[in-house]
Amino acid sequence: MNFKSDNEAPVHPAIMEALVKANKGYATAYSEDRYSRALDDRFSEVFDKECRVLPIATGTAANSIAIAEISPPWGAVMCHQLAHIHNDEGGAPEFYSSGVKLVPLNGHHGRLEAQALAEAIDSAGRHGVHNVKPSLVSITQATECGTVYRPAEIRGIAEITHERGLSLHMDGARFANAVAWLDCHPAEITWKAGVDVLSFGVTKNGAMAAEAIVVFGHPEWLEGMERRRKRGGHLLSKMRYVSAQLLAMLEDDLWLQLAADANARARQLAQGITQSPNAALEWPVEANEVFMRAEPERLQSLKDQGFEFHIWPGHDDLARLVCSFATFETEVDQLIARLSAT
Amino acid sequence: MNFKSDNEAPVHPAIMEALVKANKGYATAYSEDRYSRALDDRFSEVFDKECRVLPIATGTAANSIAIAEISPPWGAVMCHQLAHIHNDEGGAPEFYSSGVKLVPLNGHHGRLEAQALAEAIDSAGRHGVHNVKPSLVSITQATECGTVYRPAEIRGIAEITHERGLSLHMDGARFANAVAWLDCHPAEITWKAGVDVLSFGVTKNGAMAAEAIVVFGHPEWLEGMERRRKRGGHLLSKMRYVSAQLLAMLEDDLWLQLAADANARARQLAQGITQSPNAALEWPVEANEVFMRAEPERLQSLKDQGFEFHIWPGHDDLARLVCSFATFETEVDQLIARLSAT
Amino acid sequence: MNFKSDNEAPVHPAIMEALVKANKGYATAYSEDRYSRALDDRFSEVFDKECRVLPIATGTAANSIAIAEISPPWGAVMCHQLAHIHNDEGGAPEFYSSGVKLVPLNGHHGRLEAQALAEAIDSAGRHGVHNVKPSLVSITQATECGTVYRPAEIRGIAEITHERGLSLHMDGARFANAVAWLDCHPAEITWKAGVDVLSFGVTKNGAMAAEAIVVFGHPEWLEGMERRRKRGGHLLSKMRYVSAQLLAMLEDDLWLQLAADANARARQLAQGITQSPNAALEWPVEANEVFMRAEPERLQSLKDQGFEFHIWPGHDDLARLVCSFATFETEVDQLIARLSAT
Amino acid sequence: MNFKSDNEAPVHPAIMEALVKANKGYATAYSEDRYSRALDDRFSEVFDKECRVLPIATGTAANSIAIAEISPPWGAVMCHQLAHIHNDEGGAPEFYSSGVKLVPLNGHHGRLEAQALAEAIDSAGRHGVHNVKPSLVSITQATECGTVYRPAEIRGIAEITHERGLSLHMDGARFANAVAWLDCHPAEITWKAGVDVLSFGVTKNGAMAAEAIVVFGHPEWLEGMERRRKRGGHLLSKMRYVSAQLLAMLEDDLWLQLAADANARARQLAQGITQSPNAALEWPVEANEVFMRAEPERLQSLKDQGFEFHIWPGHDDLARLVCSFATFETEVDQLIARLSAT
Repeated sequence: MNFKSDNEAPVHPAIMEALVKANKGYATAYSEDRYSRALDDRFSEVFDKECRVLPIATGTAANSIAIAEISPPWGAVMCHQLAHIHNDEGGAPEFYSSGVKLVPLNGHHGRLEAQALAEAIDSAGRHGVHNVKPSLVSITQATECGTVYRPAEIRGIAEITHERGLSLHMDGARFANAVAWLDCHPAEITWKAGVDVLSFGVTKNGAMAAEAIVVFGHPEWLEGMERRRKRGGHLLSKMRYVSAQLLAMLEDDLWLQLAADANARARQLAQGITQSPNAALEWPVEANEVFMRAEPERLQSLKDQGFEFHIWPGHDDLARLVCSFATFETEVDQLIARLSAT
Repeated sequence: MNFKSDNEAPVHPAIMEALVKANKGYATAYSEDRYSRALDDRFSEVFDKECRVLPIATGTAANSIAIAEISPPWGAVMCHQLAHIHNDEGGAPEFYSSGVKLVPLNGHHGRLEAQALAEAIDSAGRHGVHNVKPSLVSITQATECGTVYRPAEIRGIAEITHERGLSLHMDGARFANAVAWLDCHPAEITWKAGVDVLSFGVTKNGAMAAEAIVVFGHPEWLEGMERRRKRGGHLLSKMRYVSAQLLAMLEDDLWLQLAADANARARQLAQGITQSPNAALEWPVEANEVFMRAEPERLQSLKDQGFEFHIWPGHDDLARLVCSFATFETEVDQLIARLSAT
Repeated sequence: MNFKSDNEAPVHPAIMEALVKANKGYATAYSEDRYSRALDDRFSEVFDKECRVLPIATGTAANSIAIAEISPPWGAVMCHQLAHIHNDEGGAPEFYSSGVKLVPLNGHHGRLEAQALAEAIDSAGRHGVHNVKPSLVSITQATECGTVYRPAEIRGIAEITHERGLSLHMDGARFANAVAWLDCHPAEITWKAGVDVLSFGVTKNGAMAAEAIVVFGHPEWLEGMERRRKRGGHLLSKMRYVSAQLLAMLEDDLWLQLAADANARARQLAQGITQSPNAALEWPVEANEVFMRAEPERLQSLKDQGFEFHIWPGHDDLARLVCSFATFETEVDQLIARLSAT
Repeated sequence: MNFKSDNEAPVHPAIMEALVKANKGYATAYSEDRYSRALDDRFSEVFDKECRVLPIATGTAANSIAIAEISPPWGAVMCHQLAHIHNDEGGAPEFYSSGVKLVPLNGHHGRLEAQALAEAIDSAGRHGVHNVKPSLVSITQATECGTVYRPAEIRGIAEITHERGLSLHMDGARFANAVAWLDCHPAEITWKAGVDVLSFGVTKNGAMAAEAIVVFGHPEWLEGMERRRKRGGHLLSKMRYVSAQLLAMLEDDLWLQLAADANARARQLAQGITQSPNAALEWPVEANEVFMRAEPERLQSLKDQGFEFHIWPGHDDLARLVCSFATFETEVDQLIARLSAT
């Protein structure tokens, strides 16, 4: 039973069906097909705001292209110390931007805090060209800890960010899980809260390989983003198949349903852990990731019984358990049962 | 009727089927799945030589990662002046390599010639650090002109290349078409002829988005290539779907059958052009691209009648017509008929 | 007797004196000293136009920083095929710009020609993101062939350049020689003719290591240039000594006197060559470089007799002879005498 | 009275004299002159070990070129959180290396500690290509806090470093001050202790602009370093003047005498502070920098009386006072007197 990552789950049948449907006849190459051309309008509807959308196959590329476009090479990107862009992308943001510096900050439960952010920005860059220059704030929604920023938190961060002349990026690899948990309109945690650009991900949420850079305002960024996507080798010739995934996800709120399902499984798991004498939650469970403290032997025993999950680097008593649309209630039940049994 | 590009054709049903089949249960993320892990062995069989394979979604990325790994930033990459890496990738090789210089060379029918190559390498780099340093030769098989290098030509180029301490890269976006036309073993035009690394493409040949960097020998390149793929945002989390396409293409020589079909349509078209008083072939037709000279008015008339194709930049009397596995014999018949009729 | 390069001549005594004079007491570091702060005003006087000046130790850095600031990474820089930035800077422009492509063009006597330039720009970049995008034209004054652009030529090039939305850069490693030969106001061949940014060099003209990026208009480039200078490791802590050289050169038109002297020696040499039956000029001699055709044996004989000069790469009958402020009339006399004698 | 920086002091007369002396006749350009060619032997004598030396005008460039050569773009450079390369070079190491990540570590008095370093290296890079890869450790000698690593400390760090396959770089902007304070042979804190490459600085120690990359062993790094120096625009045409400064510094141990003088002034100042009721030392004073805690008003009062120095960013009660060869005993006396008087 796989709790390792939502990345390891298969593609949702509706997405496979959309791919099959898109596979009719010819389509103009390089994102000029009718699926790709429909994205701007479709996302504008979903976000209730005119926006521009670049389909792209991976979140790492989406994040890195956004960062490289907005931040000059001497820029500093303020992010949480657990941020994926800082820890898990092999230096992709630095590569795409020709050497941006990521500045990792603390913050409870994986969330940046407005006041600490303000201080970090204000204390950086004081020596002009001798320092890198804060250029961008990047937050992850839902966070690496499985928690979710509230709209007011994002507004607070955006205010700090914009007052200082920086832009705000949101890494939304699990954006759907955040929206589903908050049960809010996606606008409330993006452009209405001050987000300038969103990496909108659906790969973890049941797609095959489909993400999008969604730009709110800032038409001046478009050319550079398109050029960087091409130079990064990310302008797929048969882009229709990426765009078709995105469109299918937005159809009838499939993206939110799948995320809600994953969240529900995580909540179920969290309840089981809370009630178990053998384990404890590390952080509040809001999206689809569950962080569980338990004795290393117990964790190993679960693994031996066929439950797959990751141990948090450097913490052998902390397990990360991820649920996806494909996780069955019964799988969670079994995990809880074993946890209490051992 | 679409003769614009093999990139605009749909995905072959066998590939769609392979994707559906791969969509069962969980698979380890980031190219550690069983499809991706099978690639080394499968390609080693096909090429009759132990090789290492990195699946990747686009040819631009495959080319650029290979170039960046082999060539230092101060390297010079010798290539044909019509090469895709020089003209059509938006500067991706320069980006990935942090500033390599591409040195465009002449050569009949889109092919580099060994003697001219030798002279170009020998005259470059004479002033040490003041010059860039020739590091890599890149050839395209089949070429941008729709022609195909013979094994002996490649051996000649490889000899010149290796004698001077450089490596040889082959951009094989239409590699299958070349093999099909030569009716040779793929080894004959790759490692046996001296090719060090191949960008093996199947997207144009009926896949959705699947290419591979195939490294013959040179285990020292692997780590860097894998790191560069990650930093480029090209390590797909659900890589199984890329690898499954590659495996399906190699199954029962599907890749060669599809290429042979496309080549046959191009040959059919070439014969029609040869017999027509209204048009002439620009270059020999060997693979699946046909370059046709005709009066601009005639070309426009064909377009008006619904035939889609590209006009060669700067030459309004030169049309590029591309056939694919999806081109019907009757479509070619119609084009020929109209060409003679008008 | 050294005709190899003006780079091999010593520093002019007036410059040494200026360095000694600047060596009094403390001075604020990193270009905030009073010498460096005086540059904007001083250059503005000399050029009769408000301009902004960044002192820098080498011409390669000045050129590369200017190019990197003005041209995006996907930009194409149009230049003469003999341009120093293309051939002799080891890929520095590509490095600083993260991968700009230099597009080499033909042109008589080392000079770009407006019409050919227009065609080159217009034919590049037609395929949008698939191509690099012409961003900058760079001309060298005096040229690599020892010739000099006339003001009208520069105006013609600037018009073509600006009409197409590009900027115009001048590599002025031997700018003084050009001004001295034209006997014009420096404004006539820079901002009045449409030059946007000048790499103003005095190292070859008798300084120790002193160049300047001179920006006409375009205040939006300043921050980036200053950041790039710092990131390139070119913001010298004791910048006063670079700036003092620049100021000393501008004092009482020393820069023009030294250049006029060097030019006079080159003219003297050219006359001798013209009158000799044993040699011929390759290009008109306008600045301080002389390109002489002679039999390889004769050139070797001159070398054997102690005359030092470079043979043009790949042309063993073409010698480059460079004069500087330090070249004596008698040295030129001797060279001419030996040339006719042998 | 200037205690702001040793960078603001003038050039020592012996260095000016060496420049005047080097200014005789012609010298081959681009580091092929006899001064530059003498460096390898001269440094090999001084360090009692065959080494290779690249003269260069700034410490930022020396550090960045060394880092870029040794560390791949996906490398992680472990350094103290106060390191100049991390805080004060405007992102130059990231630029030269195409995106290396600097990993800042804690450590008392500005010194890395072996155990903490070992843990940091071991915990980084665990997820393969998803993480950057520790490649280099960089230490500063003397440190940013004015303290000095003992030979045994460096040996300890080097052991940790080499055991893990990394290399050890020393930023020696104030290397002479460290050697003078330790009163040891320079070999004891470099190659004998395990340092692989040293940025040897003399600009702060009385030169005009002269640093050197000194490579111990590792001939494989030389070509890349020379290429990177050229591409960085740091291969000065008239390099003789940089090399002459370096040679003059090494003559009769001038570099050590000047450093000893600067250290003595700092020690004198430290004693005064220790005895004053109005101030306290922040860190032990070993080299030529003194960090003094005092009430902000008192610091301001000193400034008002004409003493120039920097306030530590974010700490208005912490002053940095730097002595140089040019600092007079009487200046220190006056500062101490005023400190106690106010």
